[in-house]
Amino acid sequence: MAEAKKEVRLVILAKFKEDATAEKIEEAITEYAKLVDVIPAMNSFHWGNDESEKVNLHLHEGYTHIFESSFDSIEGVQEYEDHPDHAVFEKLLLSCTEKLLAFTYQPTTVNLHK
Amino acid sequence: MAEAKKEVRLVILAKFKEDATAEKIEEAITEYAKLVDVIPAMNSFHWGNDESEKVNLHLHEGYTHIFESSFDSIEGVQEYEDHPDHAVFEKLLLSCTEKLLAFTYQPTTVNLHK
Repeated sequence: MAEAKKEVRLVILAKFKEDATAEKIEEAITEYAKLVDVIPAMNSFHWGNDESEKVNLHLHEGYTHIFESSFDSIEGVQEYEDHPDHAVFEKLLLSCTEKLLAFTYQPTTVNLHK
Repeated sequence: MAEAKKEVRLVILAKFKEDATAEKIEEAITEYAKLVDVIPAMNSFHWGNDESEKVNLHLHEGYTHIFESSFDSIEGVQEYEDHPDHAVFEKLLLSCTEKLLAFTYQPTTVNLHK
């Protein structure tokens, strides 16, 4: 029913601490974005704020931000995890967040018309 | 620091019940995919299984599946929420999942080189 692609994506949901300043949050986002330039297997990065309240959806479990990055393969995610710049970024992110959720997946499209 | 795009994405994380059969999970995924054809503001849909264990990441909080769809705008997400076919699908999804998380966001790219 489905056609698998090779690309792997990593979704991180973060709840920043109440006392995390806008500057600190911006710093975390910028440092995350910089990893695309230093980790060859990391292809893209984008982020967003939860806007569920605008559509009356209340299932965000308190997470305030999403970070989504894409990689060549699952080995590429490992390369990212093992990179020294990732370790520096991770320390920064852990210092200003209350909780984190990480989900790693291969985006798969459903072919309804085969 | 960032450039906002108009597109809005909805990420759903689902933990299917222990007794949800592979057929039931496939049915839920197919019914979700069908919404793209019936809701004009819904542009794309893909899904994936959590593969975090392959990279020694243990932060998926028990969620087993991700569903990601994209919309023209936040109003498009509302159109999806209000659509009668979404209500039918939602009932199906709620019947076979233990927990759900929904995150609505505008994907924003960081411009490091401005």
